[in-house]
Amino acid sequence: MSRSSGERTERGRVSGKGPLLPGAVLPRGFTWRGYPHLAVLPGLRVGSARAGLKERGDDVAVLALEQGVRAAAVFTRNRAAAPPVHLARAHLARRQPRLLLINSGNANAGTGAGGMEDAFRCCRELAACGGVGVQEVLPFSTGFIGRRLPVARLTAAATHALRDAVEQGWAAAARAICTTDRFPKGVTARLRLPDGRVLRFTAMAKGAGMLRPDMATMLAFIATDAALPPRALRTCLRSVVRQSFNRISVDGDTSTNDACVLLSTGRAAGPSLLPETPEWELLQQSLLLICRYLAREMLRDGEGSSRVLGITVSGGRSSRECLRTAYTIACSPLVKVSLQARVPPAGRILAALGRAPLPALDISRVQVHLGPLALIRDGMVLPEQEAAAARPPGAADRLLVHLGRGAVRETIWTTDLNSRYVDFNAGGLS
Amino acid sequence: MSRSSGERTERGRVSGKGPLLPGAVLPRGFTWRGYPHLAVLPGLRVGSARAGLKERGDDVAVLALEQGVRAAAVFTRNRAAAPPVHLARAHLARRQPRLLLINSGNANAGTGAGGMEDAFRCCRELAACGGVGVQEVLPFSTGFIGRRLPVARLTAAATHALRDAVEQGWAAAARAICTTDRFPKGVTARLRLPDGRVLRFTAMAKGAGMLRPDMATMLAFIATDAALPPRALRTCLRSVVRQSFNRISVDGDTSTNDACVLLSTGRAAGPSLLPETPEWELLQQSLLLICRYLAREMLRDGEGSSRVLGITVSGGRSSRECLRTAYTIACSPLVKVSLQARVPPAGRILAALGRAPLPALDISRVQVHLGPLALIRDGMVLPEQEAAAARPPGAADRLLVHLGRGAVRETIWTTDLNSRYVDFNAGGLS
Repeated sequence: MSRSSGERTERGRVSGKGPLLPGAVLPRGFTWRGYPHLAVLPGLRVGSARAGLKERGDDVAVLALEQGVRAAAVFTRNRAAAPPVHLARAHLARRQPRLLLINSGNANAGTGAGGMEDAFRCCRELAACGGVGVQEVLPFSTGFIGRRLPVARLTAAATHALRDAVEQGWAAAARAICTTDRFPKGVTARLRLPDGRVLRFTAMAKGAGMLRPDMATMLAFIATDAALPPRALRTCLRSVVRQSFNRISVDGDTSTNDACVLLSTGRAAGPSLLPETPEWELLQQSLLLICRYLAREMLRDGEGSSRVLGITVSGGRSSRECLRTAYTIACSPLVKVSLQARVPPAGRILAALGRAPLPALDISRVQVHLGPLALIRDGMVLPEQEAAAARPPGAADRLLVHLGRGAVRETIWTTDLNSRYVDFNAGGLS
Repeated sequence: MSRSSGERTERGRVSGKGPLLPGAVLPRGFTWRGYPHLAVLPGLRVGSARAGLKERGDDVAVLALEQGVRAAAVFTRNRAAAPPVHLARAHLARRQPRLLLINSGNANAGTGAGGMEDAFRCCRELAACGGVGVQEVLPFSTGFIGRRLPVARLTAAATHALRDAVEQGWAAAARAICTTDRFPKGVTARLRLPDGRVLRFTAMAKGAGMLRPDMATMLAFIATDAALPPRALRTCLRSVVRQSFNRISVDGDTSTNDACVLLSTGRAAGPSLLPETPEWELLQQSLLLICRYLAREMLRDGEGSSRVLGITVSGGRSSRECLRTAYTIACSPLVKVSLQARVPPAGRILAALGRAPLPALDISRVQVHLGPLALIRDGMVLPEQEAAAARPPGAADRLLVHLGRGAVRETIWTTDLNSRYVDFNAGGLS
């Protein structure tokens, strides 16, 4: 039922060993392909169908997990978290899941007890169809807030999707979970370990422009055939999310429905991977690359954004103060608007730096570069910025802020804000 | 040298006893007029001139204070505060000022030691011209960040402005201090005390759309003929600023050059007003109204904004948590974009509420209204919002958020964000 989306993938990267992420060094033996080339992972079947929640195309996806597949998940910390988030968290705390039910077009958020009942009924119907317990179904929703789910239509589509589920269903599901996304997001990868064993990964995600002002729900489903002990699975997921999806979103500044799931089929040859082994490190690196790639795809999809910019804050006393500084800059709409301008916004960056919540910051020790171009030296805006006016912003630009008061370094990613707002702000007056 | 700005005042209110602020109750005996009707205050002379810092019109203003006029000021807490801010603060700590030197078009920020030297030289030249000590001159700058001041041109214009200064000079100065402002901002008021004495006020300000995403420098100069002891003057100013200008800007989220000055000529009949007297309360109320009016004028001037919205958070445990909640909503670009939409953005407000930094918020106790229209009841988005689709947003709209966990109430003001960004976000998907 899903329509062809060839035209929507034009901006998706489909290469293999190329630049998964600008500047990232891939582990030896790591190869990858982007959506729509999402490889099968035995033990997982994926189906999608249309319930009519979106204007067109499939809007329901089901992941069927064979017995023995293990799952870990992190959920939004938003205090207005949607009923499906509460229900999925509760189910996962009791049982390993056998079915994931995902719908787009309707977030089932702000719907109170009725919304919880709806989510439960959807799980119950799908569980009955799949011959599993209701607690073995995890629900995920994304879309409009404040509308009740059409439960009958949704469960009809979900059972349909479950019956049609195939190992090759990832790409169609990646399309079905999209809401405002301009293109589907997915990646598949292989990691050849030094002992010759091969680990496989397939992942899909939805979300567009996560950092303010483009806050929207993100959902990500990452699967691997690597065998991981349950506790290690959780640890691994948390660590990876912290360094990927949480670097494109302000800490705690989450949507009502965000969730990220890591699945381990355990079908790879050899014993379970254990923490603090070299294989574990390679696995972590691979998962981190995959999640960063998906995070970057979400940024690339930000409404109207033309540029993804890394903001690296070094010379801080703590990770916390580096991140706070980076987010203060990244969340400044005046800075974001300037990111597409020819003249780098040194004055606006200076003003944002000055209001970052850093105790006793000595601005005269601060250095700022945009790529190779010095913008601020010893807290002073450099006149050279005007000389660089003709320099077009590149896709791989990196803003480097050195605080000059410690040895800690952190990086986040953000996008420009380009709109008519730009015209109003282009004058550069303080 | 200032051009006529009749066409720029069309949106300025010039009425007398009308709505100074929507919903505000004026003290008995309080009357007011808006720019350009700024009444003289004996003891203060105002001049303006052109130094060529802006494209056209005057860009330098000088306030000359007769001996005995008292001043208090609050300055930006931005850690990248501009040299003139540091210099004005240092001068004011040592001496009562005799001259205020204000320039637009150039913020003299991010200019380091050279910028400090420039600011000092401007003060010294003007002091020599005025026959006062250099520490009796307070400098204020607003405009481009990262450019050195053209000291010779600026001091030439400043001395010219000082020589031409007249008691009637307020309106021209209100124009001269504008940067991106679409219209000048000023107000004059009279307060008849119960004993028949009359207090007079004249004020001017510059700044546009202070709450993110429209952060820009705000300058405000408020003068009264009321006699206030120096310490009371400072207390009064801080209290009034906290409840006016600090309610349109996130606490600490200041620009490099913000300053607000309160001047007391002491020429009003009768003895000094003392704190905790009925007269003092009336004076405070009047100053608060004046500052709130100026703050609102800045919001009205926000780039492209079409609506000023009050956000009242009640039922909180503390002022701090009410303000944090209000700012989380007000700083959400998705909410701001929605403020001009016909359908109130209940889902976006819910998501913003859920990420407000409130410990253990029970969302099911939260109620939200937009004016008379219920948007969220017991944490649930109400379907009635769609029924209200045809209701056009009014200028005096107020968003009321009840947290249901305490008795504290706070109000801030913000604007919509309308731009092409709107088009990208108008779909309402989470």
